Amino acid sequence: MISYPTVVSKYSPDESERQRIDSVLKKCTEFVRNYCKEKGIEADPVIVGSVAKGTNLRDGDIDIFIRFERTYRKQEMERIGMEIGHKLLNNGQEKYAEHPYVMGHLEGIKIDVVPCYRISEKEKKVSSVDRTPLHTDYVLNNLKENQKNDVLLLKVFMKAIGVYGSEVRTSGFSGYICELLTINFGTFDNVLSMFAALTGRLVIPGTQAVRDRFSGPVVIIDPVDDTRNAAAAVSLESLSKVKVAAKEFLRKPSDFFFELEKEWPTPEYEDRGTCIRIFEVPRPELTDDVIYTQAVRFKNILWGIYDRYEMLPVSWEIYVDDEIINILVESRRDHVPLLNVHAGPPVDSRNVKDFIDKWKNAEKYRGPYIKGDRLYVDFRNEPAGIEELVRRELKTSNIGVHINRYRNRVKIIDPETEKRRMKVLDKFYSKNLF
Amino acid sequence: MISYPTVVSKYSPDESERQRIDSVLKKCTEFVRNYCKEKGIEADPVIVGSVAKGTNLRDGDIDIFIRFERTYRKQEMERIGMEIGHKLLNNGQEKYAEHPYVMGHLEGIKIDVVPCYRISEKEKKVSSVDRTPLHTDYVLNNLKENQKNDVLLLKVFMKAIGVYGSEVRTSGFSGYICELLTINFGTFDNVLSMFAALTGRLVIPGTQAVRDRFSGPVVIIDPVDDTRNAAAAVSLESLSKVKVAAKEFLRKPSDFFFELEKEWPTPEYEDRGTCIRIFEVPRPELTDDVIYTQAVRFKNILWGIYDRYEMLPVSWEIYVDDEIINILVESRRDHVPLLNVHAGPPVDSRNVKDFIDKWKNAEKYRGPYIKGDRLYVDFRNEPAGIEELVRRELKTSNIGVHINRYRNRVKIIDPETEKRRMKVLDKFYSKNLF
Repeated sequence: MISYPTVVSKYSPDESERQRIDSVLKKCTEFVRNYCKEKGIEADPVIVGSVAKGTNLRDGDIDIFIRFERTYRKQEMERIGMEIGHKLLNNGQEKYAEHPYVMGHLEGIKIDVVPCYRISEKEKKVSSVDRTPLHTDYVLNNLKENQKNDVLLLKVFMKAIGVYGSEVRTSGFSGYICELLTINFGTFDNVLSMFAALTGRLVIPGTQAVRDRFSGPVVIIDPVDDTRNAAAAVSLESLSKVKVAAKEFLRKPSDFFFELEKEWPTPEYEDRGTCIRIFEVPRPELTDDVIYTQAVRFKNILWGIYDRYEMLPVSWEIYVDDEIINILVESRRDHVPLLNVHAGPPVDSRNVKDFIDKWKNAEKYRGPYIKGDRLYVDFRNEPAGIEELVRRELKTSNIGVHINRYRNRVKIIDPETEKRRMKVLDKFYSKNLF
Repeated sequence: MISYPTVVSKYSPDESERQRIDSVLKKCTEFVRNYCKEKGIEADPVIVGSVAKGTNLRDGDIDIFIRFERTYRKQEMERIGMEIGHKLLNNGQEKYAEHPYVMGHLEGIKIDVVPCYRISEKEKKVSSVDRTPLHTDYVLNNLKENQKNDVLLLKVFMKAIGVYGSEVRTSGFSGYICELLTINFGTFDNVLSMFAALTGRLVIPGTQAVRDRFSGPVVIIDPVDDTRNAAAAVSLESLSKVKVAAKEFLRKPSDFFFELEKEWPTPEYEDRGTCIRIFEVPRPELTDDVIYTQAVRFKNILWGIYDRYEMLPVSWEIYVDDEIINILVESRRDHVPLLNVHAGPPVDSRNVKDFIDKWKNAEKYRGPYIKGDRLYVDFRNEPAGIEELVRRELKTSNIGVHINRYRNRVKIIDPETEKRRMKVLDKFYSKNLF
């Protein structure tokens, strides 16, 4: 049997961390409050995020929002917010999400200082960060003390199966969603039973109106803003993983589902009778979400090229780290097939005569001929290999605004030739349930 | 320019044939009338089909129906009908469509003697032959004398592009449909202009009610029975061919479209970089329609096998003669690929646990893993070639009631090895617009 208290104590902050957090929180709020008072700034500090809600995992971050009155114009608010952030954090770095913010460290704890506006529930927000303090209030008011451990278990579970976090790379469940699920279903066990029994989408509340209005695989109406799906980031695949994990866990409870530092065996790079290529570009210095979105776009462009030239792509993998973006594509073929069964216009199209004229006397295998309601011709493709085709096609493809500058010097790696270990290959070969 | 009168005179019966037809018609109707009178049979002869309507092509057949009063029971009517047929035609053969009938020859002309019931327009028919005399009446009453040549031109045109006839093999336009089209649009030229301008389906009358009720590519409500689509046999492909042919003919009128004895050059059996196999079974002694339907079924079964084993079928051809049925399948591969990306159950299915248990420790490339809302596993196929797979799969396939007995001894021909000319290969390699 799994001992929940053991899991909780393993992944909660220990006494020393808790003391450091308390001391940092105190320091920060006092500093901001005093600074605002002295300078006559109408703003106050709010601790938000899991630390504020008491649902933080070990080694978590602290989010301090500086909440301005709406009398400040956006630019001014941001300028003052950054100023306070830099005064509070030595060597703070400026980052940018929807708002700019300052990221730094105090006593070994990562801290984000984020300026925002004070809004109340029905009020129009300027950006989504303005809503964050309302989330914190909602959870503080609705999550019972004894449910905090349930949230923690749920977060660890989600993390162990790779679906914790709303960032693009994971497209999973945020901490806030874990809290809302626990508030809704009462306990960790109840949440898992719900997922194990769920078929189709998860929609809360499950009224027809909500089902009709929102289309994602997971819809959880934000209690502080009922026009918003708080779970919009969750992908179908992440939902599927939780469903399967919940079924498996209820069938055979196992430490596996609470183990965050799993050691995976190094996979063997087996010959699968297919063609594998890895496309590599440098990683520009941008946030993970931006980079990952571009990587997916790049993958889709490559997949499209493979598809168009009948290379029969079968699978792909994306790996991104601080240095590089790697897209792996596995395909049935590494050169175009000789025969091209080329679909011409539908017989109803005004292009019929041009197509017939073009192909009647051209070099070809056969045709033009009619199949169903369309014209076709069978002709011979120019022989070409993957590398050649991809290089040619990329010249005119938009692989994403931030990596387009690399499109003419994409590195193409054939792992059969370059026999070396690569993270993207490890990821590809060890693909498993979670 | 095309001379329509030249075409008409080329394909109409010549004076000698016309005289023979008249004499045969006279002989037949007199014989049947006298026979019935003598024996007290309440039935009379009716000449139906294109001869009766004066729209017959050269070397056509004669259809004589013996129309019984409805007081006769079916068996009796058929028995007497056959008796008359045999008396009229020496060496007549019994055939079977919906009714039995007798087929034979008189003065070198093929004659079908078919028993049917007398019905009037609103009356319930016993089988579709009962309606045929009504079709003849309708055309005689509605087709103007000067439109007969238009019907003839249309029939020759349809025949020249390979879409004349409602039998399964052609799935084209019957003589009756050619007549209805001419009655509807007035002239051959008008019919062609209509087809050249047509987009989508042909529906006559084109009311919404008719469109909603009938779904075929060509819908022509039978004037003698408005619950019936007289053009139900026409395939999408045949309609497409007429559309393209009409466009081409109006653009560049050419004798090609009225040439029934075209000499096609013998095609070269080029290497298309693909795998071609021909599957051969003997042809059972059954009507063309039955055989062709079975051949299509056999083709679909083979296609399914190719598809299931990822042989990537790209095209097919069917050839049927008096001796054999040949199905040609062209594919990208002639052996199964090593990698099998095997789709398991959806994550919502109750089979998830069995799938996981089955594959967790099994020999495989990787997985089980989740993609979208489904489980997958990548495993290694047993190596196997086309011949082996098809033989194995056919054992348990229903390739059609009349050819199932051959399924364990299908001849599989690889044209690369057996370098010989075959009709199915000629047909395959010379595939063209019409």
